[in-house]
Amino acid sequence: MFYTDGTMRQSQLFTKTRREAPKDETAKNAQLLIRAGFVHKEMAGVYAYLPLGLRVLENIKRIVREEMNAVGGQEMIMTSLQRKELWETTDRWNDANVDVWFKSAFKNGTEVGFGWSHEEPITDMMKHFIGSYRDLPAYAYQFQTKLRNELRAKSGIMRGREFVMKDMYSYTKDAVSHKEIYDATITAYLKIFERAGLGELTFLTFASGGAFTEFSHEFQTLSPVGEDTVYLHREKKVAINKEVLTDEVLEKLNIKREELEEVSAVEVGNIFDFGGAKSEQLGLFYVDEAGKKIPVHLGSYGIGITRLMGVIVETFADDKGMVWPEEVAPFKFHLLNLLPNDEATVTYADALYTALGDTVLYDDRDARAGEKFGDSDLIGIPWRITIGKDTVASDQIELTHRATGTVEKLTQEELMKRA
Amino acid sequence: MFYTDGTMRQSQLFTKTRREAPKDETAKNAQLLIRAGFVHKEMAGVYAYLPLGLRVLENIKRIVREEMNAVGGQEMIMTSLQRKELWETTDRWNDANVDVWFKSAFKNGTEVGFGWSHEEPITDMMKHFIGSYRDLPAYAYQFQTKLRNELRAKSGIMRGREFVMKDMYSYTKDAVSHKEIYDATITAYLKIFERAGLGELTFLTFASGGAFTEFSHEFQTLSPVGEDTVYLHREKKVAINKEVLTDEVLEKLNIKREELEEVSAVEVGNIFDFGGAKSEQLGLFYVDEAGKKIPVHLGSYGIGITRLMGVIVETFADDKGMVWPEEVAPFKFHLLNLLPNDEATVTYADALYTALGDTVLYDDRDARAGEKFGDSDLIGIPWRITIGKDTVASDQIELTHRATGTVEKLTQEELMKRA
Repeated sequence: MFYTDGTMRQSQLFTKTRREAPKDETAKNAQLLIRAGFVHKEMAGVYAYLPLGLRVLENIKRIVREEMNAVGGQEMIMTSLQRKELWETTDRWNDANVDVWFKSAFKNGTEVGFGWSHEEPITDMMKHFIGSYRDLPAYAYQFQTKLRNELRAKSGIMRGREFVMKDMYSYTKDAVSHKEIYDATITAYLKIFERAGLGELTFLTFASGGAFTEFSHEFQTLSPVGEDTVYLHREKKVAINKEVLTDEVLEKLNIKREELEEVSAVEVGNIFDFGGAKSEQLGLFYVDEAGKKIPVHLGSYGIGITRLMGVIVETFADDKGMVWPEEVAPFKFHLLNLLPNDEATVTYADALYTALGDTVLYDDRDARAGEKFGDSDLIGIPWRITIGKDTVASDQIELTHRATGTVEKLTQEELMKRA
Repeated sequence: MFYTDGTMRQSQLFTKTRREAPKDETAKNAQLLIRAGFVHKEMAGVYAYLPLGLRVLENIKRIVREEMNAVGGQEMIMTSLQRKELWETTDRWNDANVDVWFKSAFKNGTEVGFGWSHEEPITDMMKHFIGSYRDLPAYAYQFQTKLRNELRAKSGIMRGREFVMKDMYSYTKDAVSHKEIYDATITAYLKIFERAGLGELTFLTFASGGAFTEFSHEFQTLSPVGEDTVYLHREKKVAINKEVLTDEVLEKLNIKREELEEVSAVEVGNIFDFGGAKSEQLGLFYVDEAGKKIPVHLGSYGIGITRLMGVIVETFADDKGMVWPEEVAPFKFHLLNLLPNDEATVTYADALYTALGDTVLYDDRDARAGEKFGDSDLIGIPWRITIGKDTVASDQIELTHRATGTVEKLTQEELMKRA
């Protein structure tokens, strides 16, 4: 009776597919994710992640974690509760300056905020660990549930009031060492989007840089539902934001205006150079080789984890449902037993389920074939294994590729080689 | 220069040990965790988890996850933001009834709460998935960051305003199937505390049951810093809370009052039977085999993950620092190179570091031996490997057990057999 091994029989999965998404849900990504039982809508812009959805989220986090570790990042987790006085230091407590705060109060009346960003507390904390040039560089990152009091939330999990973000912070001696980690992170980000299936659609994008640098960089994924408009140079694989699209910038990038395409896109990542300014405001200094006190150079590097999941759904879904790229899919295989009441077939399918271990979702339900095929298309696992009336006798298993619809016939032995 | 492989060189770890904990920190667990760089105190009862601390937290979560999966639990993650109207249904929105809410408001003025518990939203969500007896049982759990507006927070990570809890919810047909998962979870909990090193000190405890059942059950770990007083029957391995310590209950449990010891303890887990009452309030019903509509039987099962980490620190620490049980320790081995400027020794230690992979923290710092030993005792990794002046020539590696101080001399080959 118990689901005992981390693998999953669909008959025991507590979620079910639904024919209809909630009427107030207008975003395709959330409609499909809700219908397939991946997420639950708690309220506008606020979604719970159910077993299948959580598996996707954890797969995306795993990819990001591996690439952040590869550039020297060290994982930690900051707090949601935020000190008012800290954010007042940088003048980002005031609602006039930051309009997405959720705020509450402790029982003694002291105001407290809920983290929508974490540059301030991490930089403040680093004062305990950074004092000398010997302590640099330091790269820290987290996967944090951010809370943002957005006025509107109509894009499903692509713009939430509660969402998961990976944010990394780099602390370096100077602009030269900053550039090392900044460039390494650009490369890591491109690898992440590649592994998440969005490599060909995602472009390094020049955006305005604020007070300290000419540019910041975003990563924009082309999408008809994107809220941003960017100007794309396909050949050079870069894009430019409207705000920095000037003749001067074009000349600097050696790009002609007529080579650019205007496209809709979603911002899936951003990287930012704060220089020494925020450290100076917050009092994070180091003493260099010559004994001089210098503000620490700060960079910040974000990826919207839940947003990325939403973009993946929007990008690959077809009229039958979702289509997951293999590295982020909740399972690699979806095993459908079309004869759940035939003993020999059940024995055959059960054995395959056991052999495939944690890579398979097993539709062992006592349900019609049509329902199983429909749910399988909706859920969008990359490879569908169909066990039907001839399978046991012939040892010919049907393997269908969700993305292309390609069908192959394989023996059990051949199939196991693909696991 | 980069930390590239998930393993860890101490010279690159961004945290450092500290001689002193913050003056306002009175709890031993937080003092040690802060001094060793495992956690950072953001404010009273609110702690960030730094790389070493996060590893411990993830190890505890792994143990709990394995045992929850083993009883049939399916992992998901609910939201922090909570709907007022839902909690009004069960009369738990009112501050007079629940005094730990943090509340805020959306931009349109609608009040919103921050999750301090999740029975209501999970039970409400289950209405999408449970309608028939065929949909039962369903067991769902999460690791959630709970926010509670506690008046006081003086116990370090043992009672936080922001803390991690594992909460599981069981939905069953009736009291009989409820008892199956309830009993299975008791066994799973005892196994979890055993694996976390607290098996001998943790006791199933009878507490008051509320409106639907005679008892609820807690798991209490004996500790001089415990806030609870319980009455322990060591031989029968059960304890009784003061609130249910009556002649009637003693008779029922076949225990004599004079066999009980009064002890201080910390509640590390609790399990609770709601019967059909909460489902009835929230409208979660199923149709049974005879077509009758029946409220779903709800059980809830909590373990304070961060609290458990605090109790482990309090229980095993000695005057030199922390002492981690092996399954929750951030690393199994702490490799100390006492000659970081001797080329042959560095080569030897580096090779060992590479061979031990993800199980080792490597103190490769250019620091004095005394500092390395002191930090190693404070950090409390179970096995210390010391590479000193004779190690390379003799191939005799010193292995010291943190808990007992036992020292062994092993060849590299013998050491690798212990990895």
